[in-house]
Amino acid sequence: MAAIAVLGYGTVGSGVVEVIGENSELIAGRGCSLEVKYILDLRDFPGDKYESLVTHDAEVIFADPEIKVICETMGGTGAAYAFTKRALEAGISVCTSNKELVEKHGAELSAIAAGHSCSYLFEASVGGGIPLIRTIRTGLVAENIKSIYGILNGTTNYILYRMEEQGLDFAAALKEAQEMGYAEKDPTADIEGHDPCRKIAILASLVCGKKVDYSDIPMEGLSDVSLMDLAYARSLGGTIKLIAMCDFEGGKPRAIVSPRVILADNPLKSVNDVFNAALIDSDMLGLSMYYGKGAGKLATASAVVADAVECASTIGKTVKCGWTEEKAEPGDPGELKGQFLVRIKRSALKEAESRFGAAGKICFEKGEAFEKYPVLKGVLAEDAFDDEMALVTPEMSGNEFTDKAAGLEGIIKSIRL
Amino acid sequence: MAAIAVLGYGTVGSGVVEVIGENSELIAGRGCSLEVKYILDLRDFPGDKYESLVTHDAEVIFADPEIKVICETMGGTGAAYAFTKRALEAGISVCTSNKELVEKHGAELSAIAAGHSCSYLFEASVGGGIPLIRTIRTGLVAENIKSIYGILNGTTNYILYRMEEQGLDFAAALKEAQEMGYAEKDPTADIEGHDPCRKIAILASLVCGKKVDYSDIPMEGLSDVSLMDLAYARSLGGTIKLIAMCDFEGGKPRAIVSPRVILADNPLKSVNDVFNAALIDSDMLGLSMYYGKGAGKLATASAVVADAVECASTIGKTVKCGWTEEKAEPGDPGELKGQFLVRIKRSALKEAESRFGAAGKICFEKGEAFEKYPVLKGVLAEDAFDDEMALVTPEMSGNEFTDKAAGLEGIIKSIRL
Repeated sequence: MAAIAVLGYGTVGSGVVEVIGENSELIAGRGCSLEVKYILDLRDFPGDKYESLVTHDAEVIFADPEIKVICETMGGTGAAYAFTKRALEAGISVCTSNKELVEKHGAELSAIAAGHSCSYLFEASVGGGIPLIRTIRTGLVAENIKSIYGILNGTTNYILYRMEEQGLDFAAALKEAQEMGYAEKDPTADIEGHDPCRKIAILASLVCGKKVDYSDIPMEGLSDVSLMDLAYARSLGGTIKLIAMCDFEGGKPRAIVSPRVILADNPLKSVNDVFNAALIDSDMLGLSMYYGKGAGKLATASAVVADAVECASTIGKTVKCGWTEEKAEPGDPGELKGQFLVRIKRSALKEAESRFGAAGKICFEKGEAFEKYPVLKGVLAEDAFDDEMALVTPEMSGNEFTDKAAGLEGIIKSIRL
Repeated sequence: MAAIAVLGYGTVGSGVVEVIGENSELIAGRGCSLEVKYILDLRDFPGDKYESLVTHDAEVIFADPEIKVICETMGGTGAAYAFTKRALEAGISVCTSNKELVEKHGAELSAIAAGHSCSYLFEASVGGGIPLIRTIRTGLVAENIKSIYGILNGTTNYILYRMEEQGLDFAAALKEAQEMGYAEKDPTADIEGHDPCRKIAILASLVCGKKVDYSDIPMEGLSDVSLMDLAYARSLGGTIKLIAMCDFEGGKPRAIVSPRVILADNPLKSVNDVFNAALIDSDMLGLSMYYGKGAGKLATASAVVADAVECASTIGKTVKCGWTEEKAEPGDPGELKGQFLVRIKRSALKEAESRFGAAGKICFEKGEAFEKYPVLKGVLAEDAFDDEMALVTPEMSGNEFTDKAAGLEGIIKSIRL
């Protein structure tokens, strides 16, 4: 029996208490028995089933030698950081769902844990309840991971899904997501891509064993994606998803977060609603995929509890996550190759022609497919073509594309494939 | 540094040695350093890179106190069983890809491991390189698993894929699979469903913590699936896959292995080629999916190595798998509900009418969709309809269906949805 303390009785914290309460027998049988002894929160919870466990005083927790595992579900990087550091320095393992803290201080906190024979685990910080981090550090321990490519944000995936399925425009889909409780009142972190960007930074750090900074990752949000973009993607047999990816060419992480056209043969195409999924390409196993609910109280809490079980089963030892404080030398994400869907305004065709070769003009005028620059047609309404045309470029690096498209800002719109 | 011995230098065994050789630094950084000290095989391997490690004498291995972890990649249930038992009784952990042995003696061997402070791990026995067993016992440790539903055999998935994509008939697709090395010369274990049946028995045992016997699981193989069946499935927007599933209604495992029509909204539909995938439904996380190469030398070997790392990191302790020797009380798989695709010979329509109500006749004669028993049409050639019709039943249990279809053997053909 391991006594644990839960810091923060919000959505995830109350979920942790609920999961342990609900499945205690099962958890004991498979892993080891957990008992929530304290819940730290500034608020009172009169009438709550676990009211008697609530304390406002962290000292009570730190003074209790029975507490060997803490679940930090407070969020933020202030008190959460201070409490986590103090716990680890006292040899108490900490499990968290706090991705801001993990992204910012994960390497440092992991090192402190290693120095005090305890663990800092953060499965729930990426992909909610999908065992993604655990898979990277255990199941794929013998794999040289070549790339990670995933839908790591449920809110934006829901918005894109509703745009695709219901024809809602971005604003309407966002409003609905907020009403459903999937998006925050201030949705910036999700729709601008900060959230998936933090998550891919964490995964990339674990893969290369060094710190990958979130602020080094080029990030493009969702707010510019229109129904017309989705229609073009659909005419290619695909849809648009917000993708966080990183490869490790030459040992240097090259990460990028952006909306992408996902074609029919990509298993991520059918990842809808608030689901998340990550495709991992590695040297021995090849492609593998992990799919599940990327958010939600109980799914996220379950991942925190899985970490708590691992901590409680390894008291006095450090669960290795292979993440050092050394900063990874990043590769150039601009060198990442891919195709681009380009929409070109009719008024700019002359200009586009000089940039993209003759493709644009020829295709537009003759309505013919063009081997080198396939043109989209068929699905869109005729009048859409009156205003503009769209083509798919051959494979080129982001840098090459930026060069070619220089001066066309406001005239063309591009989305990566 | 942990010294290990590999028993059996066949496909998987040589893969284990290769994976450890290739990614040793990475494995050491993330987990712990492994060194292959012995390879046990009756054969010699002149010129092999690791020739000097080969021994014909198991006593050398058992006499070496440095050996704390053994990888059993011999296969079979004879010598493999004897060596595994002996190792575990000596406190040496054993990792294996040997599903026959795991299915037959896994519970017993796990108990022996627990009694001797070592571990018996068998990730590679199910789903090849997909970390499925590890996910069930760690990432989903706090989850009450309600059902598992998966494509657990790469050979049959390849055959069905080639039938679907290339229009090969079963015999031709099997021949091709044999030529590609995906199917054995004697393909019975795969195509009759024994292999996925063993795998679902292992997973079901782990979930319910008791022994689920493979011989208790109703099993239907692939050899009866025809191109016409696939055409009917396609006309529903689906395809046919060989599915191994188990639910745990009331704590009693109800497992079944059979070909099924998989519709477009099921993420398993796009699991093609030799890939495997398992959908797990659990109480907190909901639906999650794990997808990857279910076979292949390096993928399978990588899973054995991941287990070896876990064993080497926990020497003197037992990694819990929650599997006891107690036999699980099975539920009745005949009570599992679902729909059925039924093909009915024209000559038997009168008889079919009396069994399935008026649906068959009405639909056939009028060519109309029928609310209760939707009829398939559209995709198939007209002359197909001359011979027969097909319908999809409403949801009913397997037992109910068997009742209704009694006496129609040879006249109708049914496939589960």
